[in-house]
Amino acid sequence: MSDLPEFVEFHEEGPREGFQYEKQLYPLAERVRVVDALSETGLKHIQVASFVNPKLVPSMADTPQFFAGIKKKPGVDYVALWLNRRGFEQARTVPGITLKGDLMFYSSDTFSRKNNNCGADEMRDKQSDWIDQYVEQGVPLHSAYIMCAFGCNFEGDIPVKKITDLVRFIQAQCDSRGLPLPNICLADTVGWAHPEAIKQRIGAVRELVPDARIALHLHDTRGLGAANFYSALQMGVDLFDSSVAGLGGCPFAGHGGAAGNICTEDMVFMCHEMGIETGIDLDRLIDAAQLAESVIGHPLAGHIMHSGSLSKYRS
Amino acid sequence: MSDLPEFVEFHEEGPREGFQYEKQLYPLAERVRVVDALSETGLKHIQVASFVNPKLVPSMADTPQFFAGIKKKPGVDYVALWLNRRGFEQARTVPGITLKGDLMFYSSDTFSRKNNNCGADEMRDKQSDWIDQYVEQGVPLHSAYIMCAFGCNFEGDIPVKKITDLVRFIQAQCDSRGLPLPNICLADTVGWAHPEAIKQRIGAVRELVPDARIALHLHDTRGLGAANFYSALQMGVDLFDSSVAGLGGCPFAGHGGAAGNICTEDMVFMCHEMGIETGIDLDRLIDAAQLAESVIGHPLAGHIMHSGSLSKYRS
Repeated sequence: MSDLPEFVEFHEEGPREGFQYEKQLYPLAERVRVVDALSETGLKHIQVASFVNPKLVPSMADTPQFFAGIKKKPGVDYVALWLNRRGFEQARTVPGITLKGDLMFYSSDTFSRKNNNCGADEMRDKQSDWIDQYVEQGVPLHSAYIMCAFGCNFEGDIPVKKITDLVRFIQAQCDSRGLPLPNICLADTVGWAHPEAIKQRIGAVRELVPDARIALHLHDTRGLGAANFYSALQMGVDLFDSSVAGLGGCPFAGHGGAAGNICTEDMVFMCHEMGIETGIDLDRLIDAAQLAESVIGHPLAGHIMHSGSLSKYRS
Repeated sequence: MSDLPEFVEFHEEGPREGFQYEKQLYPLAERVRVVDALSETGLKHIQVASFVNPKLVPSMADTPQFFAGIKKKPGVDYVALWLNRRGFEQARTVPGITLKGDLMFYSSDTFSRKNNNCGADEMRDKQSDWIDQYVEQGVPLHSAYIMCAFGCNFEGDIPVKKITDLVRFIQAQCDSRGLPLPNICLADTVGWAHPEAIKQRIGAVRELVPDARIALHLHDTRGLGAANFYSALQMGVDLFDSSVAGLGGCPFAGHGGAAGNICTEDMVFMCHEMGIETGIDLDRLIDAAQLAESVIGHPLAGHIMHSGSLSKYRS
């Protein structure tokens, strides 16, 4: 029990993941309602939307209006995703966004080529330019994502050395600029992680950079999300990306397969049951999850939003 | 990693759980197909159906014909559930059933009253009579279930002492008859377990009866099923009840709430990924899960039956 953190932080990705993933477009007012509900839960970091090519991702065409519409709650960071300079420049002009500089590294060359039209090494070197841009613009480094850190549908199992090599690169880049390390976020992009792999990879990264904050971005593609989350807690990990209601995927074939992130309220529930604080009001979070499901219009993968937490049985 | 078992055994409860849980009745031939598919997966223990009052549970009215219809695979135990003497007598007359004597203990008095019309103490004493009946009929003791071992919707959190007191009772009953202890099966009947409670309760039972085989009956009511399963593996537990495809529940409100057992194929997948053997052919089990879903006629909660295992990416 000793290595469990006392406090776990959740970075909510549901709005961006969910509304981007779904095929249909949702009215701005409905999307705003979901984010406004999340603002009242105690979450401190909410990824609202992305600045991407609206021709490719029509659901993200009105991202500036989306940010304009939400009620900004003091103390909550409303963040955005961008993938290129154009998106970043656009994000900089929109009021109310907390700019955080993420970096994207790929442990799989093929996956990188499919996603970015360039190999993993080129992508890695581009991140060095991003660091310079962020420094120049006064945007703090947030997380260095290592995509496919547990396996890849194109390249299969990913050796641990690919992860640690990338961490060494990140460290060298930061050291040479006198910057502190960003969070090192291991992303189980396509659902290959299992609990022992979580321990192994976190152990390897921590050995290399003992002072870095390690984060996890987990998907519940194969039903192991909660087990992977618990395994990471046992390694002392205290920062997770997650999606309210499991937004961003659905385990049923009819909705395109099982891509969803781990579900925020289910994982918050686990933490609270084990005496780990999160700063989150679980009942309000469940309300937000139910609202998200009603807006999306089909069942979502979250559990306690359907079964309820245990509070009513204890009071 | 050291405490993980090398081999984990799954007791499949999907057919009984699933067809009993659903409101509609399914043709005998369809139910037989599901069991026959499970027989080819390597599972060695399949709970097919129950002998209960057909007026109360119409789906179980043709249990004898169900047993008669399935292709008995040598080496597979086809087991049944009964709740009273009448059901047991009926089960004894049906060919092809492997009779295993389960015992049912309740850590919650109120839950026992609601389920059995008698309190937990009376229910406990009745189990002593069951032991005598099983001995008399040459039926080996299988598992002593402790229901609501993690919490109860009527009584709230259940103190560990209620569990250990019951284990002491079971031990005394067996000792006085010179019988070996049955498996001690902690049942998370209504989905209160979390990973640290799993460790705590298994630890307490093991301290009391170090040589007993401990089993778990877990439900994924609140999304922690996989984490609870992994936590139990870390305690060396090597026997689990589970349901193919997550039969016996559905996480969506429209299908009656989140009552389902942990999903056999998702947990088998976790084991195999971590190098734990199960004797089960995962691909065939996924086929059986997909068949079960098509027979049931609505989406079931299993994950890899929708997302696929990783074998195709590795070959």
